[in-house]
Amino acid sequence: MSHSDADIHPTVEEAADDIADMEIRGAATIADAAAGALATQAEDSDAESPESFRAEMRAAGRRLRETRPTAVSLPNALRYVLRGMEGRSVPDLRESVVESADEFQRELGQAQDNLGRIGANRLRDGDTVMTHCHSTDALSCVEKALDQGKEIHAIVKETRPRKQGHITARWLRDMGVPVTLIVDNAARRYLDQTDHVLVGADSIAADGSVINKVGTSGLAVNARERGVPVMVAAQTLKLHPDTMTGHTVEIEMRDEREVLTLDEEEEIGDVTVENPAFDVTPPRYVDAIVTERGQFPPESIVTLMRELFGDQQGGEPWEE
Amino acid sequence: MSHSDADIHPTVEEAADDIADMEIRGAATIADAAAGALATQAEDSDAESPESFRAEMRAAGRRLRETRPTAVSLPNALRYVLRGMEGRSVPDLRESVVESADEFQRELGQAQDNLGRIGANRLRDGDTVMTHCHSTDALSCVEKALDQGKEIHAIVKETRPRKQGHITARWLRDMGVPVTLIVDNAARRYLDQTDHVLVGADSIAADGSVINKVGTSGLAVNARERGVPVMVAAQTLKLHPDTMTGHTVEIEMRDEREVLTLDEEEEIGDVTVENPAFDVTPPRYVDAIVTERGQFPPESIVTLMRELFGDQQGGEPWEE
Amino acid sequence: MSHSDADIHPTVEEAADDIADMEIRGAATIADAAAGALATQAEDSDAESPESFRAEMRAAGRRLRETRPTAVSLPNALRYVLRGMEGRSVPDLRESVVESADEFQRELGQAQDNLGRIGANRLRDGDTVMTHCHSTDALSCVEKALDQGKEIHAIVKETRPRKQGHITARWLRDMGVPVTLIVDNAARRYLDQTDHVLVGADSIAADGSVINKVGTSGLAVNARERGVPVMVAAQTLKLHPDTMTGHTVEIEMRDEREVLTLDEEEEIGDVTVENPAFDVTPPRYVDAIVTERGQFPPESIVTLMRELFGDQQGGEPWEE
Amino acid sequence: MSHSDADIHPTVEEAADDIADMEIRGAATIADAAAGALATQAEDSDAESPESFRAEMRAAGRRLRETRPTAVSLPNALRYVLRGMEGRSVPDLRESVVESADEFQRELGQAQDNLGRIGANRLRDGDTVMTHCHSTDALSCVEKALDQGKEIHAIVKETRPRKQGHITARWLRDMGVPVTLIVDNAARRYLDQTDHVLVGADSIAADGSVINKVGTSGLAVNARERGVPVMVAAQTLKLHPDTMTGHTVEIEMRDEREVLTLDEEEEIGDVTVENPAFDVTPPRYVDAIVTERGQFPPESIVTLMRELFGDQQGGEPWEE
Amino acid sequence: MSHSDADIHPTVEEAADDIADMEIRGAATIADAAAGALATQAEDSDAESPESFRAEMRAAGRRLRETRPTAVSLPNALRYVLRGMEGRSVPDLRESVVESADEFQRELGQAQDNLGRIGANRLRDGDTVMTHCHSTDALSCVEKALDQGKEIHAIVKETRPRKQGHITARWLRDMGVPVTLIVDNAARRYLDQTDHVLVGADSIAADGSVINKVGTSGLAVNARERGVPVMVAAQTLKLHPDTMTGHTVEIEMRDEREVLTLDEEEEIGDVTVENPAFDVTPPRYVDAIVTERGQFPPESIVTLMRELFGDQQGGEPWEE
Amino acid sequence: MSHSDADIHPTVEEAADDIADMEIRGAATIADAAAGALATQAEDSDAESPESFRAEMRAAGRRLRETRPTAVSLPNALRYVLRGMEGRSVPDLRESVVESADEFQRELGQAQDNLGRIGANRLRDGDTVMTHCHSTDALSCVEKALDQGKEIHAIVKETRPRKQGHITARWLRDMGVPVTLIVDNAARRYLDQTDHVLVGADSIAADGSVINKVGTSGLAVNARERGVPVMVAAQTLKLHPDTMTGHTVEIEMRDEREVLTLDEEEEIGDVTVENPAFDVTPPRYVDAIVTERGQFPPESIVTLMRELFGDQQGGEPWEE
Repeated sequence: MSHSDADIHPTVEEAADDIADMEIRGAATIADAAAGALATQAEDSDAESPESFRAEMRAAGRRLRETRPTAVSLPNALRYVLRGMEGRSVPDLRESVVESADEFQRELGQAQDNLGRIGANRLRDGDTVMTHCHSTDALSCVEKALDQGKEIHAIVKETRPRKQGHITARWLRDMGVPVTLIVDNAARRYLDQTDHVLVGADSIAADGSVINKVGTSGLAVNARERGVPVMVAAQTLKLHPDTMTGHTVEIEMRDEREVLTLDEEEEIGDVTVENPAFDVTPPRYVDAIVTERGQFPPESIVTLMRELFGDQQGGEPWEE
Repeated sequence: MSHSDADIHPTVEEAADDIADMEIRGAATIADAAAGALATQAEDSDAESPESFRAEMRAAGRRLRETRPTAVSLPNALRYVLRGMEGRSVPDLRESVVESADEFQRELGQAQDNLGRIGANRLRDGDTVMTHCHSTDALSCVEKALDQGKEIHAIVKETRPRKQGHITARWLRDMGVPVTLIVDNAARRYLDQTDHVLVGADSIAADGSVINKVGTSGLAVNARERGVPVMVAAQTLKLHPDTMTGHTVEIEMRDEREVLTLDEEEEIGDVTVENPAFDVTPPRYVDAIVTERGQFPPESIVTLMRELFGDQQGGEPWEE
Repeated sequence: MSHSDADIHPTVEEAADDIADMEIRGAATIADAAAGALATQAEDSDAESPESFRAEMRAAGRRLRETRPTAVSLPNALRYVLRGMEGRSVPDLRESVVESADEFQRELGQAQDNLGRIGANRLRDGDTVMTHCHSTDALSCVEKALDQGKEIHAIVKETRPRKQGHITARWLRDMGVPVTLIVDNAARRYLDQTDHVLVGADSIAADGSVINKVGTSGLAVNARERGVPVMVAAQTLKLHPDTMTGHTVEIEMRDEREVLTLDEEEEIGDVTVENPAFDVTPPRYVDAIVTERGQFPPESIVTLMRELFGDQQGGEPWEE
Repeated sequence: MSHSDADIHPTVEEAADDIADMEIRGAATIADAAAGALATQAEDSDAESPESFRAEMRAAGRRLRETRPTAVSLPNALRYVLRGMEGRSVPDLRESVVESADEFQRELGQAQDNLGRIGANRLRDGDTVMTHCHSTDALSCVEKALDQGKEIHAIVKETRPRKQGHITARWLRDMGVPVTLIVDNAARRYLDQTDHVLVGADSIAADGSVINKVGTSGLAVNARERGVPVMVAAQTLKLHPDTMTGHTVEIEMRDEREVLTLDEEEEIGDVTVENPAFDVTPPRYVDAIVTERGQFPPESIVTLMRELFGDQQGGEPWEE
Repeated sequence: MSHSDADIHPTVEEAADDIADMEIRGAATIADAAAGALATQAEDSDAESPESFRAEMRAAGRRLRETRPTAVSLPNALRYVLRGMEGRSVPDLRESVVESADEFQRELGQAQDNLGRIGANRLRDGDTVMTHCHSTDALSCVEKALDQGKEIHAIVKETRPRKQGHITARWLRDMGVPVTLIVDNAARRYLDQTDHVLVGADSIAADGSVINKVGTSGLAVNARERGVPVMVAAQTLKLHPDTMTGHTVEIEMRDEREVLTLDEEEEIGDVTVENPAFDVTPPRYVDAIVTERGQFPPESIVTLMRELFGDQQGGEPWEE
Repeated sequence: MSHSDADIHPTVEEAADDIADMEIRGAATIADAAAGALATQAEDSDAESPESFRAEMRAAGRRLRETRPTAVSLPNALRYVLRGMEGRSVPDLRESVVESADEFQRELGQAQDNLGRIGANRLRDGDTVMTHCHSTDALSCVEKALDQGKEIHAIVKETRPRKQGHITARWLRDMGVPVTLIVDNAARRYLDQTDHVLVGADSIAADGSVINKVGTSGLAVNARERGVPVMVAAQTLKLHPDTMTGHTVEIEMRDEREVLTLDEEEEIGDVTVENPAFDVTPPRYVDAIVTERGQFPPESIVTLMRELFGDQQGGEPWEE
C-alpha cells in the first residue's frame, strides 16, 4: 500500500507513452511517473537560456498532460512541479525542478500512510465500517487503526457491476478484519449496525462534491438518513483544481457488458444499458474528507485546493 | 397477468400438500387455491350438525394455515371465506362458505386488472417509471397505461442478487416499453430522469410500512431526496393483518450462494455473507399504495385492513 | 358567507344551461343548484315505472355532469342525491330523491359555518394567520374566531397573477382584522411572525394532496421549513372522489394576459408565458384539513371520502 | 398494573365528589368510576317515563362531566355509556345503560394488558427502549415482552422537573430489566444505543398530535434525526374527541417550585419560572400509536376516534 | 455587460456628489468611481509630508464612504485601494495609490467576464436555468455558456413587486435564449423542468448567507426540496466584510406604492403594506457561489473575504 | 468577565503544579498561566547556547503539557508561544519568547471582549436568546449587546445535572436581563419565542463539530427544526488542533452522584447511571461560531485553526 519511487528514470516521451497505453495506471503511480519524467527532462536538458529551459519544461508538461485528458492526479503533479520552477539561470531552474519533483514524490510516497493514520484516529475500538468499491486510501485508515490496536469490523458492499467489493473483502480478510459481505441493495438494512461509511474518491470538486464509484451518493443519502457519518479518504492528488473555475467532472460511461452479459441480453431482448462509472455526492452528505494533510469538512476543501495548486487565475503552468 | 380460477377442485389435503411443496406458489395463486379448497370442503362435507360443520371448516382452515406460516395471502383468503360463514343450518352454512369463496376468487381474478387501471391513472403520457425487482402488480399499472394510449418509458434496476429486473425488462420489452437497464448502484443518478418509482410489495403492515424486495427502502429514501414520488402497487391480499396487533414481519434470510459463488468465495477467503430477501420502507417515504380498491396514503391503509379482515380483536376465525 | 337555498326551482335543463354558461358559479352554488335540479326533476317526473323513474334521474345526472367536466362539487352533489335514491315504487323513489336533495342542501347551507367554527378552535387569541388567494372557507375560520372573542391578525399575500389577496384583505378589514399586505415573494420573511398558514382548497385528492391556487405548495414547503403549521379549510364538497381510482387532477392553464399585458409583451419581445391556475401540495406539508365534519390529517381524508361518496368501485350512480 | 372493578357502587354524587376532590385519580380509574356511577344511577332510578329516565341520565352525565373539565378519560366514559343507551321503555333503557357501563368497565379492565401484548410484539429480543416520564401503558409493553421471553434493556430519562423517571426505573428494576439512568440532556447521546423510544400519552388529538409530558417532543425530533422509531402506548380512553372539532388541548402550567426551590431562587434573584406540564409532538415524528385495539399510524387515529366516540357532529350525549 | 473605465477623472468631491445623488449607481459603477476618485486625489495632492498625504487619503475615503452608508461595493473599493497605499515618501505613496486603484479598476473591468466563464462551466448543453430578479452577473454566466456553444433555456420569474424579471427576459431574448415567463407563485411547479436556479446577490455575509432580492430564500428552499442546485453569481465586490465582525445586513424597506397602487388601496381600505427589498438565504440552501476568482461553497466564502479585505481586526483603513 | 494578567511571575514548575492541582482552572486562566510561565522560564534561563535554550523551552513546554492531557487551551498557548520562538542567539530567542508570550496574553486579555462585541452585532434590539449551561463567552455577547443599547431577553435552561443555568440566570439578572428559567425538557416549547440559541463551547473540532455541555446537540437539532439559528461563542483557544489529524475528543464521564443522590438510589435500587459531561453537535446544526477574530461557519473553522496553530504536519513544537 505504498508508492515506490521509480528506480529507473524514464524520459518524458517514455512516461507519456506508458501512461497513454495504461501500462502506468492508478492515480498515484501516474502522478509519480509524471513528476519523475519532468525531473529527468530537467536533468537531461541542454537548454542554453532560461527562456528555452522554461519553454522546454512547459512543452514536457503539455506532452504529459495530453496523454490522459480526464485524469486528475496527472495535472496535479505537473502543477506542483512546474509551480516550483524558480531561478534566473538554467542551473537554478534545473535544480528547482528536480527538487520540486523530488519533494512531490517523497510526499506522495508517504501520503497514504499519513492519511491512514489520520483516518484511523476517527475510528474507535470496536467500530464497524461499511465500504463501497475498493479504495487503498480507505483501507489504509483501517490498517492504521488495527496498528493502533483497535478492533474493526467491516460490512463490504459488493459494488456492482465490477464487484470490487470482493477485492476489498479479501484485503480486509488479509488484515484480519471480520468481513460481512452484502449486495448493494442490502446497505440500508445494515446501516443500523454501521458506525462509519468509509469510502475513497475518484476526485473531489471545489464545491465540495465527491466524485466516486457509482452508488456512493445513494449510500451517503441513506447514511445521513440513518444517522451514520460518512468519511471520504482521499489524498490531495485527488483534488480537482479545474473545478475551481466551474468545470464539472465528466462521468465516464463504461462498457454495457459489465452490466449485462451477451447471454443475458439475448434472454431479455433489445434494451438500452447505461453503465456510468461514477456519481457525485453533494458535500452536505459527507462529514469529513480525510487527506494526508489533515481532515476537512467538504465545504472547506477548496481552501486546501487553492493552497496546494493555486487559484487557477493565471492559467496552467504548462501553457505558453 | 391474470389469475385463472382453478378448473379442478382439489381437496383441502391436496391443496395443503401442494402449497407446502411449493407446487402452488405466488401470493395470488396460493390464496385462490386456499379459498377453493375451503369451498370444496364445504361442498363435500357430510357434517350433520352446524357445530360439526363449523368445526370441520375451522380444522380445514388450520390445516391450510399451517402449510406456510409466514405467507400473507393464505391467511387473508381463509379470513375472508370463514368470516363469511353464516347460517343456522348446515345447508345455509355450506352455501355461505361456497358463495364467500366464490366471491373471493372472483374478486381476486379481477384484482390485478382493477389495480392496474387505478395505478395507470397516476401515470401521464410520456412518463418514465423506475422499477425494482419484478412485480406483476406494478407491471399491470404500466400495461393499463399503455392500454390508455400513454407512452411510458422504464428504467429497470437489475435487482441483485437474483436480478429479477431482467424478467421485468423482458416483460416491459414485450409490452413495447423502451427499457433502460441499470445496476442498482446507478439508481440515484437516474432518478433525475424518473417521474415515478413504481414497485410492488411482499406485504404491507398496519403502521404503513412496506415490506418489499431488499433495496426498496434505500431507493425510496433517495427518491424522496430527489423529489420523485414513490408508488407501491399491491393487491389487498398483501395487507398483513397480524401487524395490527404489533407483530413485525420476519425477514427471510436467503442462501448466501445467491450473493457469492463458490468460486468467488474461494478467491476471497472466509467471509460472512448476509442475504436478506426483503427490507422495510417506512410510510413517510411512500406517496401512495395502489390497490384494487383504490389508492391510499400508507398511513391510512390500516383502515382498509380493518374493513376487509376485521380488527383481529376476536382472534382468528379458524381458532377454536 | 352563507349559501342561500334557491327560492325558485329551476329544471335540470335550466340549471345545466346556467352552470354551463357560468351564470351559476362557485363550488357551493353549483352543488346546490345541481341537487335542487334533481329534486325538481323528481317532483316533476311523470315516470310510470320505477325503472323509468330511475332512468330519468340518471339521465338528469348525466346532463348536469356534462356541463362542467372538471368541477368537483357538481358530481359530489349528484353522487350524494342519487346514492340516496331508494324505494320500490315511483312515489317512494321520488320522496327519497327530494329528501336526499333537501338534506344535501341543508347541510351545504350550514357547512361553511360549521367548518368555520372548527377552524376557529385551532386559532388562539392573538394569533397571526398568513393567507394565500381568497377562500371563503378559510375566512370563515377567522370570522368565527372573532365571534369567539379572539383577536386575530392577518398577513395577506397578494397572490399574483390575479391578486385575489386584495379581496381577502378587504374582507378581513371589514371584519376588523388588522391586515399586512405583502407580495408573494416576501412570504418566507414574514413566516417568522406567522402562527398559521391558512388557505382554502380547489379540491383534495385521495392521496391527501391539496390542489389549490398556484403558490400554495411553495408556501407550504417554506412554512414547514420555518416550523409554521399549515391549515387547509375545505368543505367536503371539495373532496375529489375520482382520485380514489388514481385519477390526477388536471391543472387549468389560464390566459397569459393575466401574467403579461400586451404592452409589457411588446417591451420584452417573444416569450412563452405559462400561467397555471393551481398547484399540488403533498400531504406531508399540510398539518390539518378542516372540513365541516371535523378536522383530519391529510393522510386520512380518503376515509372520509369513502364514507361520504362510496369507494367508486361500482361506478357512478348516473351511469347506466 | 390492572384496573379493578369497583366492588362498591358509589352514586353519581359520591363519584363526582371523589373525582373533584382527586380521591379518585388516574385516567383509567376516573373513567371506571364514572361508568360505574352511571350504572348505579340507572339501577337506582325511579323514573316513570323514558323521557324522564333519559333526562336523569343526561343530568348525571353533566354532573360527572363538570367535576374535571379538562380530563379526557372522563367524558370518553360518559360518551361510551350514554351512546349505548337504547330502548323504548324504562326497563330497556336501564338494562342498556347497565350493560353498556359493564362492557366499558370490562374492556377497560383488559385494555392495558391487551395494549401491552400488542406493544410487546413490536419489541424484539435484546432490544433497548428509551423511556420518558412514567407510563403504565408503556411499561405494560415491556412487561408483556418479558412474558414473551424477550430480553429488554432500558435507558430511562430522569424527566425533570418531577423525576418520574425514578419511578419508571424502579418498576423496570422490579421486572428484572437492566436500567441505565440518564439526565434528560444526555438523551441524544444515548439514542445510538436505543432501538425504540417508548412513551405514553396524556391525550391524543384528532390531527395525530401526541400530548405528553414536557420533553417528549424534543426527544421525538432527535429520535427521528437519529433514525430511532418512536412508539406511543396509549389506551383509547386517551383519545381526545373534542379535538375533532378543532379544539386544542390546554397545556397545564404547574407550580414553579417544582423547577426552582425557594433556596435556589434566593440565590439567583428575581426570575420568571415557566413550568409547563406537557408538550405536543406532531404526528410526523411518531411511528406508531399502540392502543388496546391495535396499533395505528398517528395520522389514522382520527378514524378510530370517530368509530369509538362518534364524529361529534350531533353534540354530546349529555347535552339537552 | 462590461464596466468601462471612466475616461474623465472626477474629483473625490464630484464623485461623492454623484454617488450620493444616485447619478452614479450600480455596485460595480460605484466601486469604479470611488477607486478612480482616490487616484485623482492622489495625483492632485499637494501634500508635503507622508503624514499629511495619508491623512488626506483617509479623509477622501471617509468622504466617499459616507455617501452611501449601506452600499457594499463602495467600501470594498476603498479598502482595496487604501490597503495598497505603501511607501515612505509622498511620491511613493502617490504611485502606490494610483497603481492600486488602477489594478482594482482593471480587475473590476474583467470580473464579470471572468465570473461568467466560470459560471458557464457549470451549465451543460441543453440545461434550463430559473432566474429571479435581474442580475448581470447571473446573465453573464448564460452569455458565456452560449459563447461556449451550449444551448440554454430559461424560466424567468417576473419578480414582484418591480418585475425586474421582464428586463431579464428581454436580455435573454436578445441573447437568443428561449424564455418562459412565469409569476413567482408558479416557481415550484416549474422546478421539475429546471436544472439550475441561477441568481445574483446584493451582498454575501461571512456566515455564508446570501442577501438578494426578496423571494430568493423561498425559491432556494423549494429548489432544495425539489433537488435542484442553487448557484449564486456574485463578484467579490459583493462580499460584505463588515459581517465578519457579526454585523447583520440591514434590509431596506421600499415604498409601499410598489406593492399597492393608490387606486388599489382605496378599493381595499386601510391596510399596512410591507415591502422589504431583500431577504436572506442561509448557506445550507446554496450549492455554489460563483465569483470572478472561482466558485466557492458558501461556507468557505469567509476565507476569500479575509484574503481580499483583511480580517477587520485593525479597523478600517480610512479611520484615523 | 476579563482575564487579568498575572502580576506575579510563577515558574514553570509552580504553574505546572497549580494547573495539575486545579488551583489554576478555566480554559483562559490556564492558557494565560502557561504562556506566562514560558516567559518566566525564558527570562530566567541561563542557557549558554541557542541549542540548550531551545531544549530548555521545549522541556518546559512538555512539563506544562503533561499536567492536563485533555485540556485544549493549554497546548494552544504552548503552540502559540513556542512557534514564535525565533533567533540565532540566546538573547534573540529569549526576546522572541517573551514577546510572543506577551502578545498571546495581551490578545487573550482582550479576546472575550472582542468576541462579545462581534457576537453582540448578531443580536437585534428586543431579541430573546436561549442559553444552555454557563459560558462567559456567550454571556459576553449579551453584555456587549446591552452596551450597544439593545434590549435582550433570555430563556435559561437549568442544565441538569449541575444546573449551571442557575449561575447564568444570576449573571443575566445582574446585567438587568429579564430571565425566564425552564427545565431542559421544556426547551422545544419555548423555541417558538426564541430568536437565537446562544451557547459556548468546550472545544471545537476540525470537522466543525462543537463539543459542549451535554444537551447542546439535542437543543441544536430542535432549534434547526423550529427554524431558530444556533450561535456558538468560543474564543480561538477552544479550537482543538489535534482534531486536524482525526483525533476525536474524549468525552469525560462524571460522577454518578451528580445525577442520582444516595437517597434516590436507595429508593430505586441497582441501576447504572451514565453521566457524560459533554456531547458533540455536528456542524450542520450550527449557524455561526463567534470568535474574537470574527464569526465563521463551522465548516470553515479548520482554516482559522491552521492559520493560528499550523497544520500539525511537523509535530508539536515541544517535541524533540
